[in-house]
Formats: sequence, C-alpha cells, structure tokens
Amino acid sequence: MLENLSRAYSTTRRFSEFLCEPLEIEDYVIQSMPDASPTRWHLAHTTWFFETFVLASSETNYRPINPHFQSLFNSYYNSVGEQFPRSRRGLLTRPTVAEVYEYRHEVDRRLLHCLEGLSGDEAERIGHVLELGIHHEQQHQELILTDLKYLYSCNPLWPVYRPSPPEDRRPRANPKQAAWSAHRSGIVEIGHRGEAFCYDNEQPRHNALLHAFEIQDRLVTVGEFMEFMRDGGYRRPDLWLSLGWSTKNEQGWSAPLYWVENDGLWSQFTLHGLRELNPHEPVCHVSYFEADAFARWSGSRLPTEQEWEHVAVSAQREPQPHPKETAHFHPRPLIDDGDRIAQLFGEVWQWTSSPYTPYPGYRAAMGALGEYNGKFMCNQYVLRGSSRATPSGHARPTYRNFFPPDARWQFSGFRLTRDVSAVS
Amino acid sequence: MLENLSRAYSTTRRFSEFLCEPLEIEDYVIQSMPDASPTRWHLAHTTWFFETFVLASSETNYRPINPHFQSLFNSYYNSVGEQFPRSRRGLLTRPTVAEVYEYRHEVDRRLLHCLEGLSGDEAERIGHVLELGIHHEQQHQELILTDLKYLYSCNPLWPVYRPSPPEDRRPRANPKQAAWSAHRSGIVEIGHRGEAFCYDNEQPRHNALLHAFEIQDRLVTVGEFMEFMRDGGYRRPDLWLSLGWSTKNEQGWSAPLYWVENDGLWSQFTLHGLRELNPHEPVCHVSYFEADAFARWSGSRLPTEQEWEHVAVSAQREPQPHPKETAHFHPRPLIDDGDRIAQLFGEVWQWTSSPYTPYPGYRAAMGALGEYNGKFMCNQYVLRGSSRATPSGHARPTYRNFFPPDARWQFSGFRLTRDVSAVS
Amino acid sequence: MLENLSRAYSTTRRFSEFLCEPLEIEDYVIQSMPDASPTRWHLAHTTWFFETFVLASSETNYRPINPHFQSLFNSYYNSVGEQFPRSRRGLLTRPTVAEVYEYRHEVDRRLLHCLEGLSGDEAERIGHVLELGIHHEQQHQELILTDLKYLYSCNPLWPVYRPSPPEDRRPRANPKQAAWSAHRSGIVEIGHRGEAFCYDNEQPRHNALLHAFEIQDRLVTVGEFMEFMRDGGYRRPDLWLSLGWSTKNEQGWSAPLYWVENDGLWSQFTLHGLRELNPHEPVCHVSYFEADAFARWSGSRLPTEQEWEHVAVSAQREPQPHPKETAHFHPRPLIDDGDRIAQLFGEVWQWTSSPYTPYPGYRAAMGALGEYNGKFMCNQYVLRGSSRATPSGHARPTYRNFFPPDARWQFSGFRLTRDVSAVS
Amino acid sequence: MLENLSRAYSTTRRFSEFLCEPLEIEDYVIQSMPDASPTRWHLAHTTWFFETFVLASSETNYRPINPHFQSLFNSYYNSVGEQFPRSRRGLLTRPTVAEVYEYRHEVDRRLLHCLEGLSGDEAERIGHVLELGIHHEQQHQELILTDLKYLYSCNPLWPVYRPSPPEDRRPRANPKQAAWSAHRSGIVEIGHRGEAFCYDNEQPRHNALLHAFEIQDRLVTVGEFMEFMRDGGYRRPDLWLSLGWSTKNEQGWSAPLYWVENDGLWSQFTLHGLRELNPHEPVCHVSYFEADAFARWSGSRLPTEQEWEHVAVSAQREPQPHPKETAHFHPRPLIDDGDRIAQLFGEVWQWTSSPYTPYPGYRAAMGALGEYNGKFMCNQYVLRGSSRATPSGHARPTYRNFFPPDARWQFSGFRLTRDVSAVS
Repeated sequence: MLENLSRAYSTTRRFSEFLCEPLEIEDYVIQSMPDASPTRWHLAHTTWFFETFVLASSETNYRPINPHFQSLFNSYYNSVGEQFPRSRRGLLTRPTVAEVYEYRHEVDRRLLHCLEGLSGDEAERIGHVLELGIHHEQQHQELILTDLKYLYSCNPLWPVYRPSPPEDRRPRANPKQAAWSAHRSGIVEIGHRGEAFCYDNEQPRHNALLHAFEIQDRLVTVGEFMEFMRDGGYRRPDLWLSLGWSTKNEQGWSAPLYWVENDGLWSQFTLHGLRELNPHEPVCHVSYFEADAFARWSGSRLPTEQEWEHVAVSAQREPQPHPKETAHFHPRPLIDDGDRIAQLFGEVWQWTSSPYTPYPGYRAAMGALGEYNGKFMCNQYVLRGSSRATPSGHARPTYRNFFPPDARWQFSGFRLTRDVSAVS
Repeated sequence: MLENLSRAYSTTRRFSEFLCEPLEIEDYVIQSMPDASPTRWHLAHTTWFFETFVLASSETNYRPINPHFQSLFNSYYNSVGEQFPRSRRGLLTRPTVAEVYEYRHEVDRRLLHCLEGLSGDEAERIGHVLELGIHHEQQHQELILTDLKYLYSCNPLWPVYRPSPPEDRRPRANPKQAAWSAHRSGIVEIGHRGEAFCYDNEQPRHNALLHAFEIQDRLVTVGEFMEFMRDGGYRRPDLWLSLGWSTKNEQGWSAPLYWVENDGLWSQFTLHGLRELNPHEPVCHVSYFEADAFARWSGSRLPTEQEWEHVAVSAQREPQPHPKETAHFHPRPLIDDGDRIAQLFGEVWQWTSSPYTPYPGYRAAMGALGEYNGKFMCNQYVLRGSSRATPSGHARPTYRNFFPPDARWQFSGFRLTRDVSAVS
Repeated sequence: MLENLSRAYSTTRRFSEFLCEPLEIEDYVIQSMPDASPTRWHLAHTTWFFETFVLASSETNYRPINPHFQSLFNSYYNSVGEQFPRSRRGLLTRPTVAEVYEYRHEVDRRLLHCLEGLSGDEAERIGHVLELGIHHEQQHQELILTDLKYLYSCNPLWPVYRPSPPEDRRPRANPKQAAWSAHRSGIVEIGHRGEAFCYDNEQPRHNALLHAFEIQDRLVTVGEFMEFMRDGGYRRPDLWLSLGWSTKNEQGWSAPLYWVENDGLWSQFTLHGLRELNPHEPVCHVSYFEADAFARWSGSRLPTEQEWEHVAVSAQREPQPHPKETAHFHPRPLIDDGDRIAQLFGEVWQWTSSPYTPYPGYRAAMGALGEYNGKFMCNQYVLRGSSRATPSGHARPTYRNFFPPDARWQFSGFRLTRDVSAVS
Repeated sequence: MLENLSRAYSTTRRFSEFLCEPLEIEDYVIQSMPDASPTRWHLAHTTWFFETFVLASSETNYRPINPHFQSLFNSYYNSVGEQFPRSRRGLLTRPTVAEVYEYRHEVDRRLLHCLEGLSGDEAERIGHVLELGIHHEQQHQELILTDLKYLYSCNPLWPVYRPSPPEDRRPRANPKQAAWSAHRSGIVEIGHRGEAFCYDNEQPRHNALLHAFEIQDRLVTVGEFMEFMRDGGYRRPDLWLSLGWSTKNEQGWSAPLYWVENDGLWSQFTLHGLRELNPHEPVCHVSYFEADAFARWSGSRLPTEQEWEHVAVSAQREPQPHPKETAHFHPRPLIDDGDRIAQLFGEVWQWTSSPYTPYPGYRAAMGALGEYNGKFMCNQYVLRGSSRATPSGHARPTYRNFFPPDARWQFSGFRLTRDVSAVS
C-alpha cells in the first residue's frame, strides 16, 4: 500500500506545481478576500500538513524545518497550536515563492525517504494519514484555481491564466433539452462503503428515507438563468429566502459572479480570459441563494444531498479523470448523447438543499485530524458532484463538499428537482 | 367558529396589555439591539397585522386608520409594501404609547363589529386569518418579555419587571437525577395532524426514519452547566463548532447570558430581578453553540427535532396552561415526581440539532401570509417545546420555533440525547 | 455674588424645564445617534454636574443621592471616575423621567440651602464652579433642542416641537443685499477680558496679527445656497476638501441636513414642523465641509476666528436676549435695516476656518474641570456667534464653540470673507 | 534650466530604483494597510505623474502608453479622471514588476528625448511641472521606505531590508543633555522666499506674530520616552487629548510603533532588522497624540510650525545630503558636539502643534496640480524637518509635511517647547 501511496503522493505534489506553471511571482502572494488565500500559502500549507501529520511522527530525530512555519501555515488546527490569522495571509512577503518551493521539495525528499523504512502497523497508520494528506492537497488544488480566478477578476486588465484549449473552441450542436427522471420513495443506503478512501463526514453508511421525486437530467444553463434575470429574478423578493434577499442587496448582486455587462451585452470572466456568454453552458458561480431563488421561480426545488447521491449511485456514474493536457477550467455546453442523466461530475459543483450536518452516528476522527470536517457543520450547505477545477481522482458519489450559502467564487451551479405529488 | 375566535381574540388582546401593566412609558420605546423591538412596536405591529390581513379585506368601506402605520408597523411583508427599517424601530417617539393603545382599541372595536356580520365562506376565510393573527400576537407576547428582559439587563440599576411570585420562593427538595429513556429505530410520522391550528411549517405530515437513540428525562441544569464551565468549557476549542468558537471570542462569552460574576460569586438577572443562581434550575439563555459544546463535552449530543417530537408524542404530553395570576417568568427547578419524561413544555425552549428546513412537500401559504415562515428557512436551528414566557395555548408537540445559532436572549436551554450504539 | 448666582441658578434650571414642557415621556428617552443624547440624560447630567462639583464639596455630611448616578450621568470626566458608555445612553429606561425631575429638584433644594451658609473664600470658590455649572447647563439647553430636532427628523410623522410663533408668519420685505466690509491688517487683542464669566479656552487674552480682509455684513442665505446646488455644488470635487468629498459621498449628502425634496420641491424640517424653504433665511445645518465648498465656489473663504472676533468687537455688538415667550427656534430672514454688520448673534453659529487649538499660553483649569475644554482641541473647528437655540445670556463675542467638520445637526451656517489682495 | 532638470530627473529616477535593489518580487506587490501602497504602485504612479503632466502635454503625437494605467495609477487627481480605489491597490498582480520597470524606462526615454526639443515659454512651463514631478517622486521615495517597513513588520520572520551600515555599529559616547534655547516675541516672516523650488503650501511668504518661547536643542529620546511609559504615560487619561485617548484604546497602543516587548525586554523593528532599543536615539514612530501626551507629561508643549521654522531659519540650518552609500534608514543617537540646536533635519520628522491650514493668502495652483496640497488641509498636523528616509535635496526649512494625528508609520518624532512665562 505504501508504495502506491508514495506514487500517488508524488503525482499529486507535481500536479500542484503544474497548476502554478503559468504564474508570475506576483500572482502567488496576494490575498484577494478573506475567504481566499495566496497561491503560495496553499503550496506551503499542504506541505505543512505533510510535515506536521506525517513527517513529525515518522521521521527519526525529526526537527521542524522552520519553527515559524508551524503557525504561519497552520490553517485551523487548534490542537496543533497557534495560527497566523487567516485574514493576514496576504501580508507575508517571506518566505518567498522560491523558498516555499524549497520547503516543498525538502519535505518531499524527507518524506519519501522516511516512507521507505516503514512497515507493519506503523506503515498502516502513516499510510492513512498520508492518504488524507493527498486528498487534502487535491482540495487545495481546486482552491488554487478558484482563488486565482477571483484574484484576476479584481484586475481591470483581465489577466488570462491559460489560453483556451482547442476543444473549447469546437462548435457544439444539439444542446440537450432538459428532461425529468423519476425516483420512487423508499429507504436507501447513504454514505461511503468499502475500503477506498473517504472523509469522515461521508460516514457512517446509514439508511435514509426518500420521498418520491423527479430530477432533471442536466444542469441549469446560462440561457435558462438569463430568462430568470429577464423575468426580474433579482428584483422579486417573493422568490428569495429572507437572508438571501438582504445578502443580494448588501452585495449588489444582479447576475452571477464574473458576469460583466457592457452596453447591454453580457460576457463573463474565465480562467481563459473574458469571453461571450454561451447560453448552453451550465450556469456557474451562483450562490445557494441564487440557485434557490431560480428553483422557486421555476416551480421546482433543489435536491437533497440524499436524493442526489441516490441518483448518482443508481446511475452507476463515476467521475472521469480530466486529461491534464487539456487544462480546461470552465464548464462545457452539453451535447445530447442520449445519456439518461448527465453532468453529475466534472462541470460544476451542485448546490443541494441540505444543510451540512453530521450523519446519524457520525464520529469525528481522534486528535487534530478530528478538526478536519466536523467543526464546520453549521450554517453551510452541501454541494455534490465535482467541477472542471476538481483534480482527477478526487471526486466520488458520496463526496460532501460544503460552503456557506452566500459563497460564489467556487465553480458552483445546480440542477432541479421536484416532488412527485407536485407533478400530477 | 367565529364566535369562539372572537372570544379568543379578545382574550389574547387583553393578555398583551396585561403583560404591559408593570411598564413605565419609558420601557415601551427603546430598542436595545437590532434583534429586539420596543414593546410599543410589538403592540402596534400585532394590531397592524389584524388591520392589514383581516380588517382591510372584510370591513365595508375600509380606510387605513393611519396611512403611515402601513409601513411603520410592517415587519417583513414585502408583498404588503415598504417597511420602516427594523434597526430604526427605536427612533420613533410617535405615535405615543397612548396613541398606540388607541390604535389597538379602535382596531379591536371595528374588527369585532365586522366579525359579527360575517358568515359562510367569507367567515371561514377570515376565520383562518384571524386565528393566525391570534397565534401571531402570542408569539409577540413572548417577544415582549424577552425583549424587555434584554432591555432591563442593559441597565446597571437592574429594574424588576414584576416581583417574584410566592411559589418561586417555596423550598424544593429532591431534585431529579437525570435518566436516559430509550427509543427504537423505525419510521414515525412527523408533523401536524387534524383540524386544530398550526403554522404552515408544521406540515405536511410525513414519514421520517429515526435511528435508535436515548434521551434524558429532564433538562440540563445550571449546576451541570457550571461543571462544564469549571472544566474549561469556554476555553477549549475542541468542544466547539468553528463558528461557535469565533462567535464566543468575538462576543466575549464566558457564561450564559444574564449571568453576572462578582468576586467569584455568580448571580443571574431575571424578570424578577437579580438573584443567586439555583443549581437545580434548567440552564437558560444559552446559544445553540453553547448547548452543542456542552453536549460534546458530556459525550452526548442534541436531539434532532424529529426525535424530540416523537418523544413528546409517544409520551402523550401536552403543554399545560400557565395560570396568568402567577406571572412567573423564570424556569423552575424540577422536583422528582417519578415522571418518565419531564420539562418538555413550559420551562425553556430546547435547541435541537436540526437546521430549520422545509418538510418534504412543504408549500408556503399563498400571498403575503406565505412570507410568515418559509423565507426564514436558512441558517437557523429548530427549538422545540415552550418556555415560561410562552402564553397558554400557544405550544404544541409539533411546534417549530427557530433562531440563529448565536441567539441567546430567548428562554433557550436544552436536553441531551445519545446514539444507542454509543451506549453499549 | 452668591445671591446673584443663586438667582441665575434658579432661572437657568427653570429654563431647562421650560424647554421640556412640550415633550411626551417618549421624547425624553431615545438616543437617535451617537452624538446626540436623550433629553432625560441632559436633565440628569447637568444636575450631576452640580451635585458632583458643587454639592459634594460644599454640603456638610454630603452623601451621594444615588451612587449609580455617579457613572450613569458622568459624561467624560475621567478624574471623577467611570462613565456609562456614551453610545448606550439610550438604553436606560430608569431612572424614569419623573425620577430625574425628582433628582433635579432635590439637588436644587439642597444646593440652594447649602449656598445660604457659605461665605468668604469658600463662597468665592464655590461661586466660580456654580457659575461654570450654569453656563454648562445652558450649553445643554441648546443640545436639548438640537438633539430633539434630530430625533424628530427620524420620524416620518414629522412631529412638531412647538407651533410656529406668530412673528414667524409675518411677511418680510426687502431682504438685505450682501455687502463687504473692509478691515486693515494689524495687531489686535483676542480673548476674554474682564471679570465676567468665560470658559478657560477664551484665555489668555493675547495679541494676534490680522492680515487685511473683507467680510460680508450678513449670513449666506438659503437662496444663495440653492444657486450653489444648481451649479453642481455637490457634484464637483474641485470645490471640496478631500475629506469633505469622501464624507459627502459616504453620507450621501446632496443638500443641507433636514432639507427634503419631493417632486423637485424642497422643504425643510424645523422644530416648528415641516415647511417650505424661505430663500431669505440664513442657510442652516451645513457642515464645515459644505460651508468651505460654498466659499470656494463663490471665490471667497471663511473667516478665521480672530477675524470674526475682531469684527464683532469693533462693531461693539453684543448678543440680545431671546424673549422666552417667543420660543422661536429657527433662523429668521433678515430685513435690511441699514445695519453695518448683521446677524452676528442669535441666528446660526458660524463656521470659521480656524481649527480649535489652544490660545498661546493656554492653561487648562486644575482638576476634573480641566477636562472641560482643553482635551477636545483636535480635529474640530471653531464656530462663532450664537444661534436661535442658544439661551439668553450665554453668548459673547469671545465665545468659542467647536464641532468636528462633518457635524450638521447643530444650528450651523456661515458668512463669507475674502483677502483684500483678492479684490483689486 | 532644462538641462539641469534633465540631470536631476535622471538622478531621481535612478534613486527610486536604487531603493528597490534589495527587494524580492514578492515585496513589491502587497498593500499592508489602507494608508500604505505597494512599492510597485509607487514606481508606477510616479511614472504616471510624468506621463500625465509632462509627456502628454509636450510630446508630439502623444498617445497613452497603456490606457488602463490612466486610472490604475492615478492617486487622487479628480480632474484627470477616475481612480482605481486606493484600498484595492494591493489586488493587482499585473502589470508585473518587470512591466512596471519597462513602463518607467519608456517614459524616461521619451521624456528625456522630448525635453531636448523644448525651448522658450514651453520649456519654462514644462520645466516647472518637471521639477514638481521630481519632488513628487522624492516624496514617494520616502513612502517606499515607510510602507516597506510597515509591510515587513507584519511578518513574524522580521525580514531585513538592508544590513546595518558600519557607522551604525560605531560606539557613541557623551549623549547630549537637552538644553532650552530662548526666542523673543515679535513679528517674523514665514514661508518660502526666492526662486528655488517649493510647494504651493509654503506660500505666500507672510508675517506671523510669535510669542516668546523656549525650544529644546535636541529631539526627545527613546530613554526619555521610556520614563514616560514607566510613569504610566499610556494609562493616564489626564495626559491625553480625548481623541488620542480613545484612539490609543481602540488601537491598543502601549508603546511606539515597532517596539516589541519580550519578557520585559524591549526591542524595535527597523529596516535593518530587529534590534535592542538604544536610549540615546530619538524616539520615532509616535503619533501626534503620543507626542502631545509626552509634552503634557513633561510640563511643556510642542512647537507651532512658525516657531519651528523661525528657529531653523535663525540658526541658518540647512539639511545635509545623505550619502547614498550609507543607506542608513534609522535615526541616530546624538553626540554632543556643542551645537546650539541639533537634529533639525535628517533624523525624524517633528510633529508641531499646528493643524495643517492654508497660509494667509494661499492660492492653490490652477488645474489638476491644484489638487496636490490644498485639498488635504483638514484634520492633519504639520511636521517639520526631515527624516533618515527623506532623500537628499528634498528637505528645506519652510517644508510643510503633514499627516493625521494618529499616523505612526512615518519616521515621526518630536522636540519640546515651552512658553517663556511658564519658566520664571
């Protein structure tokens, strides 16, 4: 097992650096808002994770690489010690980007060397933490992209992260018409099963009772969202949750994040630059509030996370790897290929109507790693699926992503559901 | 039906005024924080509700009593029109308290007169709204008490709302030891049944799947909460939700609201004045965050709202009327009278672990009254039961009260639950 | 001397209560913004001043009337002890208004009794503090009016403090054309002279060097200010101080405070109710920033406080008593009566271009009363003259009033000055 | 004249780049607080100044180098157009540092080329603006240093800008004892005279009346300031202006900025790293509030700006050039060399008690350059002299620097003054 993990470790670590290839040094250091972190911080924090939770407990005669890093790059692990304040991550010019890469490479070297010597129980224990660290770094790979996108969007020069990949310019005919797929009521099993990796919040596997529902076989599109806007969607309080309405007003929202109007013409900022809106693309960068308002406007609702998981599992859908070469970080219009249920993975995360709560019988992991998930189960909503920015191998049908209902800088969209009784 | 309702209307209206008997004019006008409203505003707003939703649609040749009142006393009904900003309710010195009472009495007079002439469908339609208005006013009766308590607590003179009732000074022997009562897993029915009044959020009645659990037969007490405090409960981040921990730090919480320390001695401010802590009382005025942290510290958890409702329904418990004469507005220590499950109603509202969400198949009412409940289903938690401040006739086993997790000025406490698997 | 002071004391104390005659209890308790205080607080604080600085040091066997009042009604005297936070003055419902009047009357009774027994040095020492207390209460009399005006203006019902006095409805012909009056450069004496009362900030009397200037013989009018507005005065950054421009934008100013536009028609809220703008009235309720911008627009400037004082002293002008019966609290249009220099006193306070700084050789008084003036000499501007709200006997040519440059709720206007070199 | 100016231009431009030699790319981009700007922004903004005010009006067929730069690098010139918000200067990762240097060099090339062709009136007009631009860039050279210092100070790694120069480690014997030097009252001339460059705020030259005073012949030292601290200087409200006291409490000040306490031992962060406090150094990085409180504590006061200027002019003191090679950016202890008045220039800027106001007869320049000074004359205080960070050739006796009274990140100290009457 450790051998495979060593390989996965190296692959994952390299992919983080691949994502940074197009960056200027300037792009690494700025914190564009409290929720986002500088790229350099992501690179250092994921390394800190391996140093703190793997190296420190498995290396003989371990000594901290830099004692300051223990707090500088600790995100929120109170059990590990003090944390440099999150809102001040963008005030650090040192360690420099070069020094952060050195830090990464030293940890890589020492950690791989250290793994070679392990065996038995020790190997198993360390293997579990190592695996968690790999998935942790993958989460930050997505954050590197979403945080960079937000950062670039603050600049009137609209920097381009990478040019559009060729496939992105291919014409796409026959967009799929939305259809409803029906599911009966009954008890289903929810949560992770088997030996493969999952986070603690996907467990324990347990029974859940579903009520009959219908779900759309594709994501809501840009074109549909524009209809909502034309129908006064952002001006009708009856469509919104009360907190959504006040948030919208305070933040001045009148379209999804990154949409830019110029003389009545809409375009959107993407990691591949500013471009025209494509009505057949899934709508992206909407908050839970906007998704919920759209659903109410359309006479339907968002699915619960249990409904979503049941649909994905019944369809036997698994996320596909993104070919790294494409480096295509924007959701794509859907061609109708007759698929019964499409776009579950790999385009945009999908808001569900489920507040992020512990599963029945949930136990957080022991020790510091118990802070990974459980303590955030309040005032957040679950998103399911995965996005164009999610690294290959990271998504799965039981995966529970979560963000506060006003978050818009993630690649977040939605799909519609309705009660069956509402149909007849 | 209208005859009974007329009687209930008059009783309810009089009870609001009974609650205000001890007040000075000064007590009516101040808004002590954004979440609280001046008493005068409560008196006027509940009247506005009857004027707007009953009188305006049932009185012949109806004309507004004062056109300004339409926005001044509209709380959050966007469908009805503009609202005077909530945070500025305390800037109004006019209409005076006397004028608000005149307004109340004029609406009472006209409304009762108007009801006499109704019959048939019209009577039924109006009857439903009238009933809602009565329950609405009862909710504000509780808010009058909680908002006054907060207001008085800002004053170093510690004003007394009413002197302690005699029963409050009676000695109480044999406090009840907590015991766990077990419930099997299975499908249960949740939600309101029958013809009696309920809010739309208690419907539709539906099946829910419970997992085996045990619940304590009484509320957590002041004495138990002090143990938590002595054990560093407010200083240990591992016990808290992340948002709870930051809220606690920002707000500087180190004890429940209204607890006052003086030279190591704790007392608490009540509507009957400042008094010593009684360890056998239910702990009160804690946030969801504190209830949740206590539960984690004790190795248990809070019940879901479905668990709570199932327990109350199985025990065939119904809330008892408060004799108005007692006017006792502080939770009481529990004597062990052998009851299998105690303190479900009438002491403190009980935090559940359930975010406030729509029931499966939930439909908000049509029109403006649809704004009553549904639009608040976000970032709030359900509380069950009722408190010393809840008026007689207002509580029921299916009732869903809700507040944000940081709210402490309500009479809020909690009871513990645990998974059965955790026991063996 | 004490006999006269006793009389002045009683007169002043009665005048505060005269000002409150039209008030409802509700009007006494609300704090409408951090800079304003509830009327009840003014009544209590001025009484606290006499209790603390006179009674406590002159009464045999003095004991505090209510120990809580020492901090509740201490404004900013750190030497005296803790202060109840200024921003929370509006959270107190007790002591009630009636109790505050009782407090006033008890202090009056005891203080007058106590004065009778004094003589010699003791009488002189106490006499000085008593005199200061009288002028202190007069300052709060003006604040009672300005704070009430602000409070009423928050209410869409536009409460009327007192009906307009008859003189206010008299037609007024021949408004005065503005003319410039010239003053040569030279050394002049500035500051208070003689035995009569003054504040410490008016001393020591000292030489100041004036440069030749011209000053307008009347105040800037509403009509002139509207020209400025029509000429884009609120939209041209070149006319404003940088801090003024950002303040204006943040606060959303587009006219003087209390001006209300309705369908292109301007009216203004006054203590006598809402009324049409009168173009011949002095403009009032403008900030320093607006006065300064108007002056720049008109090619002139505001006078320094030394220029203003020199003009007033040379003209041998003294403020006139307001007949209490008129109770006319709004600045009046000026009839041309041939006066060489008009409206120095009794209409509006006049912004000068002088930051509020200590005079050369200034010494604050010893002890707590040294906190009266000196510690506020930062980021404020001096206003000279007096207003319709200034009580009789309070104004004098050397009086230095002061407010931050963004303050608008005082009766503040201005008059224009220019350099002589700018004329030729 | 243009030839000399061309030389001065090139020298100044090179010096900005010399200051940046020790920087990593990371150091250029971060905005550490709203008052500070990224180094890159300073480099670009000073270039924008030359492009906008010189190149655009003197180059034939001028076209903007990058139209976006017009708003991106406009600081506060409303007459020129929109400004990218000051508080968001740190969100820009592009143009990169390299591109900013290219921008600088292109403007340099074109501007120098353009100057060669000028003569006559045009040369004179452009010459004046060019000279202003040079002095403007010098101001930003000081800001580059102060903003960098603040930025580095946010980092627990305490980055070193440059190592200490050798002279900084030389032992220094015989610190100077403070002595008072007396000045008689009388009329003096204040303001710039002659043809050499000055800002508009130093004019017109005019008469001012001074009252007799005494001034200390050296700056207040670290050692003296520690006495103030030991005597409770930061805990005694009687020593502070009211606004200073509340600012101190809100900001949590208990020592000058950059002082760091560790186990009772004080050190300070400098551009040459963290080092022990030297009691003989001038105290630095104090606000006006702290300087004023110290002066009150010591029974003296701060000088007015007229007093300061008169002292400097009478002593015939002129600032000395800093040898660039030393690159010593921290104030130095004073050796007693018998000088009658020392440390007027080149160590720390000196707070005066003078609010920043226009001189009698002041006229702002015409057009956009009129926004350079005048519009900031509100709620700021004048500082005189110059600091270790002021570039050679920038200081002069009539120079008026200005900052708000709470500013601490400049190299600001003070010297004491007292009234003569206070002495005898």
